[in-house]
Amino acid sequence: MREALVAAAFRLFLERGYEETTVDDIVALAGVGRRSFFRYFPSKEDVVFPDHERCLADMTAFLAAGDGDDEPVGRVCDAARLVLLMYAENPGFSVQRYRLTKKVPGLRAYELSVVWRYERALAGYLRGRFAGRRDGVLRADVIAAAVVAAHNNALRSWLRSDGTGEPTATVDHALDLVRAAFDGGPRPPVDERPEDVVVVVSRRGAPLWRVVQEIETTLGRD
Amino acid sequence: MREALVAAAFRLFLERGYEETTVDDIVALAGVGRRSFFRYFPSKEDVVFPDHERCLADMTAFLAAGDGDDEPVGRVCDAARLVLLMYAENPGFSVQRYRLTKKVPGLRAYELSVVWRYERALAGYLRGRFAGRRDGVLRADVIAAAVVAAHNNALRSWLRSDGTGEPTATVDHALDLVRAAFDGGPRPPVDERPEDVVVVVSRRGAPLWRVVQEIETTLGRD
Repeated sequence: MREALVAAAFRLFLERGYEETTVDDIVALAGVGRRSFFRYFPSKEDVVFPDHERCLADMTAFLAAGDGDDEPVGRVCDAARLVLLMYAENPGFSVQRYRLTKKVPGLRAYELSVVWRYERALAGYLRGRFAGRRDGVLRADVIAAAVVAAHNNALRSWLRSDGTGEPTATVDHALDLVRAAFDGGPRPPVDERPEDVVVVVSRRGAPLWRVVQEIETTLGRD
Repeated sequence: MREALVAAAFRLFLERGYEETTVDDIVALAGVGRRSFFRYFPSKEDVVFPDHERCLADMTAFLAAGDGDDEPVGRVCDAARLVLLMYAENPGFSVQRYRLTKKVPGLRAYELSVVWRYERALAGYLRGRFAGRRDGVLRADVIAAAVVAAHNNALRSWLRSDGTGEPTATVDHALDLVRAAFDGGPRPPVDERPEDVVVVVSRRGAPLWRVVQEIETTLGRD
């Protein structure tokens, strides 16, 4: 019944336009009553995004199932991939919806609120993992936003190509860029660093003695 | 007249609630006609965010005025600071609006769409600056999202503290985190690097000879 309502809705949206289609039109085509529609979907907008609630629940469960040993940025990247999987499960439907959403400002606004909920789920997880660390909340929010932007950049590329080809590698590449920028999140306080790291940045043309001097100073061995 | 409409609207929103206040109530209190209201504000939601259109225009103009020599990530951070300035100009009003927006889902959705427009303005600028570079569009989108998230994290901290104190340092600190993660955006192709840079990462406990060996190898001097 749920699938029949979605199919009827999209057939009408494509034939007549989204604004021109009423819930009454949808239930008439699907051969069910209005109450059945609203049992599954709180509003006409919700029928356009029938899988996001399930995907949000899956994402939240996936993040909660971590054992605390996972690298946090990697874990949220994996969580974001669940959204890609949902889109890739049904390329034809995903491309239709993408085109519809671009045309209808109300759906675009709805989509922004859905994206925001994904972002908050990722940020909430990272805030927990970074708890007690310096700038933990700030880093959590920034990394969550970066992960969502990278994922959506890759997802949109795939949707614009009409869902042809395999989107996984593109999304992996995009998420790798975020992981490279924020590898592992904030560092623990100094006294908790068993594997303290020194980063030296030098121009390639710098004389070697200058580089060594810099390292000695940094290591406190001058 | 515009300011009088905003003042009347907020007085009623605080006294009666946002949903319970109509445009008719607002114009009656302000002593003007409905048409005057709609000359300034397309809808009741827009009166809650009276300055964002101006701020978006200022941001776009600021970005367009760059001479192409600015460091791109620094430039979008400076552009984001224009939003902070707008909020900090009028702390009392900004805090009132923050509380109202948290309570009314429709206003939250409106705010998300405004934030999205700021983010696209920043991303559009970065896409232009990164044109022709590998992953230029992806980097532009990710950095724009990270800048907006960092800015909004700091802005919300200030709003939650009832707009007391000086928010500039907090926002600067948040934006510095993004700049550190994405210093300067994508690098030019190898043959365009006049000031090539080598980064060496080493454990603090590593013996100095091992570090030097690593640098020699990286510099191609082994």
